[in-house]
Amino acid sequence: MPRIIKHPELRREELLDHAQALFLTHGYDRASLNDVIAAAGVSKGAFYHYFASKEALLEALAERFARQALAGVQKILDDPNLDPLGRLNALMATSRQAKIETAPEAWALFETLFRPENLVLFHRINLAASKSFSPVLVQIIRQGLDDGTFRTFDPEGVADIVMQFGTATYDIIAKAFAGGSDADMEIAIETLEKRVRLYEIALDRILGLPDGSIRIGEPGYVRAVMTARRDNPAETAAAPKRAGRD
Amino acid sequence: MPRIIKHPELRREELLDHAQALFLTHGYDRASLNDVIAAAGVSKGAFYHYFASKEALLEALAERFARQALAGVQKILDDPNLDPLGRLNALMATSRQAKIETAPEAWALFETLFRPENLVLFHRINLAASKSFSPVLVQIIRQGLDDGTFRTFDPEGVADIVMQFGTATYDIIAKAFAGGSDADMEIAIETLEKRVRLYEIALDRILGLPDGSIRIGEPGYVRAVMTARRDNPAETAAAPKRAGRD
Repeated sequence: MPRIIKHPELRREELLDHAQALFLTHGYDRASLNDVIAAAGVSKGAFYHYFASKEALLEALAERFARQALAGVQKILDDPNLDPLGRLNALMATSRQAKIETAPEAWALFETLFRPENLVLFHRINLAASKSFSPVLVQIIRQGLDDGTFRTFDPEGVADIVMQFGTATYDIIAKAFAGGSDADMEIAIETLEKRVRLYEIALDRILGLPDGSIRIGEPGYVRAVMTARRDNPAETAAAPKRAGRD
Repeated sequence: MPRIIKHPELRREELLDHAQALFLTHGYDRASLNDVIAAAGVSKGAFYHYFASKEALLEALAERFARQALAGVQKILDDPNLDPLGRLNALMATSRQAKIETAPEAWALFETLFRPENLVLFHRINLAASKSFSPVLVQIIRQGLDDGTFRTFDPEGVADIVMQFGTATYDIIAKAFAGGSDADMEIAIETLEKRVRLYEIALDRILGLPDGSIRIGEPGYVRAVMTARRDNPAETAAAPKRAGRD
């Protein structure tokens, strides 16, 4: 077979595909960089031309996830039938739906970011994601200021607060994973469900809207995302044990 | 001189005093663990009985700072003449005043936490500080709910948001330090001044208060804290250069 010269961008995407497939099958922590290189059928030298480390692979996969999510957002921004609040809620609904749908894959790839030793990587990936999403939020908030629906003097700051709301769930999730029991997970789910409702009302008020205007979650949303993590299908199907809290 | 057996708690405090003095003189990053051990005049074995690492020393110093700050807060909690909003504002004013007064020492000790390589330590120290301060906030918020001043269903969640507001400034400060120029610092100060005003109004609204009720900052507060960092007194005294932003 003659040697085929591939476009570098294409080659990079293929390496990411192989890495993603391996991480999905074996989990990020269990798959080695050598496994990825073997599966991709490239030389080590060729691989390292694209990615300096296993961490760099995960970072690139996170960027790809963020890019795909952003692509879906464009039609919301372009929809002339949406007012700013409708646009914000459509953005939240799309993001929620995407999170539920990709949850099994996302956990397999990114669960490792909630381990204490990966905090720096989590922070870096999170910062990059915020940088991508903030401008979209700022654009919508500005539209709401222009038409008088929203009331704030600092659209960028409010966008940052929204991104912080997402980041703030880190400690709750990390604690549940560190604990490891069903009871730990149940406490985390209850805390997160409550937190989503608080963030909805907080954001309503920060933007000068009546309580109940903004919809970040929906009933069962947090549970759907969190329980998608269990890799044992039998366990996922079973009703979660009710945690005793005293 | 006969060997004096000291109480372990006292010995530990003395080691912290020596470490603090050295870190203040030379900066945390430049002082070595051996310097601390030499200054304290103890054996390595004795030292490691108390602290496993230089990081552990810094963590213990942060705990001591937090403990001292909390001690000053008790009289606000006990003051019968303060209503819940007055109590919250007194808490903010005390914390603001303490931050201005301790800023030169705090920077010398803790500036290192804003370096990327110390993110894990920052997160650990920050989590511990939040754990100490959150109950105080929750107590005051509950009082405001009881007397009908505040309006929220989740006092613990609101306390967490307040602590997040503090943490959220991390990236702004880390970026200014990484940049290193006067212009970077000036951008950070302006961003933080604006952010303080946003957090005030955000917290007003989250608690169902009229805009302008809660006072987190005061004019010049951020600048006072940030410029206290410069270790060259001549430079501190000079008027900060106005940054050009284009």
